[in-house]
Amino acid sequence: MTKIKTCIVGASGYIGGEAVRLLLGHPNIDLIAVTGNESAGKRLDEIQPNLRGYSDLVYQKEIPEADVYMLSLPHGEAQNVVPRLKGKVVDLSGDFRLQDTAKFEKYYKAPHKQPELLKKFAYGIPEINRSRIREAQYVAAGGCFASAAILSLWPLRELAAGRAIVDGKTGSSGSGIKPGEKTHHPFRASSFFAYEMFHHRHTPEIEQASGVEVLFQPHSTPLVRGVFTTSYVPLKREMSADEVFDVFRKAYAGERFVRLSKGTTNVNNVKGSNFIDLGVAAEGRTAIVFAAIDNLVKGGAGQGVQCLNLMCGLPEEAGLLMPPAQP
Amino acid sequence: MTKIKTCIVGASGYIGGEAVRLLLGHPNIDLIAVTGNESAGKRLDEIQPNLRGYSDLVYQKEIPEADVYMLSLPHGEAQNVVPRLKGKVVDLSGDFRLQDTAKFEKYYKAPHKQPELLKKFAYGIPEINRSRIREAQYVAAGGCFASAAILSLWPLRELAAGRAIVDGKTGSSGSGIKPGEKTHHPFRASSFFAYEMFHHRHTPEIEQASGVEVLFQPHSTPLVRGVFTTSYVPLKREMSADEVFDVFRKAYAGERFVRLSKGTTNVNNVKGSNFIDLGVAAEGRTAIVFAAIDNLVKGGAGQGVQCLNLMCGLPEEAGLLMPPAQP
Amino acid sequence: MTKIKTCIVGASGYIGGEAVRLLLGHPNIDLIAVTGNESAGKRLDEIQPNLRGYSDLVYQKEIPEADVYMLSLPHGEAQNVVPRLKGKVVDLSGDFRLQDTAKFEKYYKAPHKQPELLKKFAYGIPEINRSRIREAQYVAAGGCFASAAILSLWPLRELAAGRAIVDGKTGSSGSGIKPGEKTHHPFRASSFFAYEMFHHRHTPEIEQASGVEVLFQPHSTPLVRGVFTTSYVPLKREMSADEVFDVFRKAYAGERFVRLSKGTTNVNNVKGSNFIDLGVAAEGRTAIVFAAIDNLVKGGAGQGVQCLNLMCGLPEEAGLLMPPAQP
Amino acid sequence: MTKIKTCIVGASGYIGGEAVRLLLGHPNIDLIAVTGNESAGKRLDEIQPNLRGYSDLVYQKEIPEADVYMLSLPHGEAQNVVPRLKGKVVDLSGDFRLQDTAKFEKYYKAPHKQPELLKKFAYGIPEINRSRIREAQYVAAGGCFASAAILSLWPLRELAAGRAIVDGKTGSSGSGIKPGEKTHHPFRASSFFAYEMFHHRHTPEIEQASGVEVLFQPHSTPLVRGVFTTSYVPLKREMSADEVFDVFRKAYAGERFVRLSKGTTNVNNVKGSNFIDLGVAAEGRTAIVFAAIDNLVKGGAGQGVQCLNLMCGLPEEAGLLMPPAQP
Repeated sequence: MTKIKTCIVGASGYIGGEAVRLLLGHPNIDLIAVTGNESAGKRLDEIQPNLRGYSDLVYQKEIPEADVYMLSLPHGEAQNVVPRLKGKVVDLSGDFRLQDTAKFEKYYKAPHKQPELLKKFAYGIPEINRSRIREAQYVAAGGCFASAAILSLWPLRELAAGRAIVDGKTGSSGSGIKPGEKTHHPFRASSFFAYEMFHHRHTPEIEQASGVEVLFQPHSTPLVRGVFTTSYVPLKREMSADEVFDVFRKAYAGERFVRLSKGTTNVNNVKGSNFIDLGVAAEGRTAIVFAAIDNLVKGGAGQGVQCLNLMCGLPEEAGLLMPPAQP
Repeated sequence: MTKIKTCIVGASGYIGGEAVRLLLGHPNIDLIAVTGNESAGKRLDEIQPNLRGYSDLVYQKEIPEADVYMLSLPHGEAQNVVPRLKGKVVDLSGDFRLQDTAKFEKYYKAPHKQPELLKKFAYGIPEINRSRIREAQYVAAGGCFASAAILSLWPLRELAAGRAIVDGKTGSSGSGIKPGEKTHHPFRASSFFAYEMFHHRHTPEIEQASGVEVLFQPHSTPLVRGVFTTSYVPLKREMSADEVFDVFRKAYAGERFVRLSKGTTNVNNVKGSNFIDLGVAAEGRTAIVFAAIDNLVKGGAGQGVQCLNLMCGLPEEAGLLMPPAQP
Repeated sequence: MTKIKTCIVGASGYIGGEAVRLLLGHPNIDLIAVTGNESAGKRLDEIQPNLRGYSDLVYQKEIPEADVYMLSLPHGEAQNVVPRLKGKVVDLSGDFRLQDTAKFEKYYKAPHKQPELLKKFAYGIPEINRSRIREAQYVAAGGCFASAAILSLWPLRELAAGRAIVDGKTGSSGSGIKPGEKTHHPFRASSFFAYEMFHHRHTPEIEQASGVEVLFQPHSTPLVRGVFTTSYVPLKREMSADEVFDVFRKAYAGERFVRLSKGTTNVNNVKGSNFIDLGVAAEGRTAIVFAAIDNLVKGGAGQGVQCLNLMCGLPEEAGLLMPPAQP
Repeated sequence: MTKIKTCIVGASGYIGGEAVRLLLGHPNIDLIAVTGNESAGKRLDEIQPNLRGYSDLVYQKEIPEADVYMLSLPHGEAQNVVPRLKGKVVDLSGDFRLQDTAKFEKYYKAPHKQPELLKKFAYGIPEINRSRIREAQYVAAGGCFASAAILSLWPLRELAAGRAIVDGKTGSSGSGIKPGEKTHHPFRASSFFAYEMFHHRHTPEIEQASGVEVLFQPHSTPLVRGVFTTSYVPLKREMSADEVFDVFRKAYAGERFVRLSKGTTNVNNVKGSNFIDLGVAAEGRTAIVFAAIDNLVKGGAGQGVQCLNLMCGLPEEAGLLMPPAQP
């Protein structure tokens, strides 16, 4: 089979780097180019030294012709780039996730520049939107916190009796490769704090895709990789943990990247992988759903590759089955 | 002034060790003895090597006569020890915190052995129970998660419209000095997980002391020190963040160990100190209260010393004012 | 091609778990069994929860017939097990690494139980012993610190003017999966200390395989994965950094798993991979060689798989080329 | 007794912040001002949030008159500031540590601007230079790595048979409060690497103060606080560990901030304190000396306060005896 020519647009950061890592190991992909503004002219392994020995690619400024483009750009830039691309596009940013342009403007503090294009984007979480992704030319892969929360809430959308509370926790890699005060090692290594009270951008994304109203509160942890969410869901009726688990078992039957447990779960088990591990508990009229993902994989590049596979008629799990490591 | 003769019963663990550290630096205390079963016969600095150069104390098995006893024993043991002690007692365990023996039995899985003695215990969080602590012979200092949650909820007890959700996060030192699977460094360093769904022992303690019904869900983080709680409180009416902040400002006016902020807070700022840093947010009919403490100090030995000071007529902050360090 | 039936004997620890991870992804291996004493009867993913979804293997007590056995047993046990096995054996322990039984007895504090068998073992670091490994029935894969130090010193064996000093640093996973005081998270997370002065077991292993006399001093760091060694080598004559680098370049020309740099290197770049990254510096009559490996892969299971590949006539890099991740 | 009016010049970083912490708790010091360029106009606790509740100081641009100035400025700036100051000065930077201006120029890449002033500076490690510090108007406190190495080597200066190798390891706080690539949490948390081969600035400082020639090689660890050095010292004759220990015991008899051990030591025991913990081993003609300090205290602000105490006729340990904490 001919390999699919793929270009990663914006491959200098953590998620872009993970996209490179995954696509270099993908049996059906030919990674023909990586682009970067500040990185232009540098060898791939100058920016991603872990990847030394795998590729002779050099960052370039111009985007070449390709069958598929995976975009990992700063917020707002994908809106400028997508109109110029011919071919399929998987966008890993937040630019095309919200279909409601008023909400986009409220949460992203700027009007959407491509409202017409927006309509052509399918939302990229395969477990809840597979058939649309298969047919889409454009996919906006789900965000890190959003993916964890949406897959926690979606099976309960008919059972929820009002607003759920989603308490989210993220590792420092979620802030990207650029150093900053909040990710300065002496500070972050012993910090735990909340941020963006009531108004995080993933709030409308979670509600749009899960069908459940939420109060979402993110926190920063000293983890490097990993997003963990705890979702407290008010139920219309009393349900046992077993009943709630059964709802999830049916909702995700056959899903290769969903691993279900009764009780808790742990980000430690999904590091480097495309899995979402979900744990379920319930008592009275409250369900608690725990979700653990690697924010750079199932919450980033891995989900993008999963979407890309669907869009290109490849096996959904292609290039994504390397087992995660312990410890 | 004569110094108060104090004995720390059970000084081999982390909280007992912090009690030693604080009392060695306390201007009004004469630390006359430290006890330990397995440590008996060893020098203090064999178990607490950080304290080398500060004391010639040797762990002893027998408890000597003292003016005050600070107990840092495994759960259940304080019930056996307290009846034998003459003098004031500050217990840092959970043995005497719950006044309702039925709840004690439910959450601690054993009937209380000293129900009569239990009645003589004052609950030890000075900010909400100062006058009783001053007069008490026996004090049960508040637990780590419980202290953070109680001080988050107590000011809102008249304003809360039903059950609050308290999402708690703890560092590994909360599990004590004994190595175990969940605190094995290769595992814990990249773990985040929930535990004890719906039935953690601090649940009834929080409700008893704060007057607010709660769903409490604890989680483990890769922090060493620190408890952070996020409390979601449904309000009887809409309140702004400023209004809620004002409630807290009045509730804790003049409190030396409470530091209030609008917005978030961070465990990083309280490491090694007796402070509780509280952050407040609100929107519509929901308040969110963030609390950060050092679980071994304000959630352990420091709170015990604060209680001891009150019980002995000393300045409440004596021995507790060393400034916390950054980073 | 028929797959090679492989059994991992002792698959409950970290190195055994990594062997499982690597062999499950190996195109030419059929992992037919995993054994374990305490784990017997449990599913693989009860002990290695990261591997859930990859295998239905259940730990068994008995060792079945196989083409190849990979042994990851506590020190001393391989000596009892190997005589009973028919087939090829890769031992990941220290039992068969030292050919000099007197040195074995001195450093391992017990006489060797199988001196005759010992002679049949090839030392398992392919980069310096490839042809013998290819023909061997039995291979003793090099230890973690030893592999880093040996590959740092071996190219300089003719140039060294006397004893080299090797200052080693290891992550906590090197101590294994069993919790202990020195790997207790609250302790280890802010610890740095030396251990086993002058007499670490890897000392004679380094000297035997590198041909350079050493003073080896190990230290513990708060890393989870990774061994880093700094080797200070006295030279017979003045050499520039470029000259020393050239020696290394020639010594390791064509080696897939050796990545050379002028200057420093970093364990961060080799996490989860079979690479050894070597950095070289020199001034006057001193060379400094820096080595970074993942102690569980190039210093453990990965090196074992590399040896297994050679022993079985497979491509040396089979199953070992998944790119390492950042961060 | 009248308190000594002290100003901290440059109090916005980690070492400056530690100076504030220590002097706020110092019984004989009146901290009258803190200065900062970018921080000017901000309250102390905006930059040092841990110190909230301890002081109403506001950062100012101008340096007021004071009895003593403690300087914690970026490299090179103290040379401009000191000439303008009337009063005693403790400089915590490297500007006035090297008496040999040629070496200064070689290692600091710029000629010294105040060679005359330089001669008036005493080198600030009290354990080896107490009498000069007592009489000095100007003191240049020893650097972090340098202090650890000097106190490791100085007792052996007559016994050393040539160049010692000092392998140094530092936590991330040693790089200061300004975020950068090498201290970005996602990177640093799993990194171990060497830097500045052969030419680190502390090399001539170590040699000048210890009287022993050294090859000094620094490394970065994922610790936050702590410097650990391993010094390999060739001896003129064979010495046992006991003999070497005895040399240290005599050299540091009565020193309040030196804690000696046979064998290893650990940075974990000195966090937040002014101690240097030294461990000693020896075999044949080689001694190994391990040193552990808190780089911000004994390797920074604490050492500065210790010098200040001597210069002002105060008890040497004033303000420095708060016991370190575990864990």
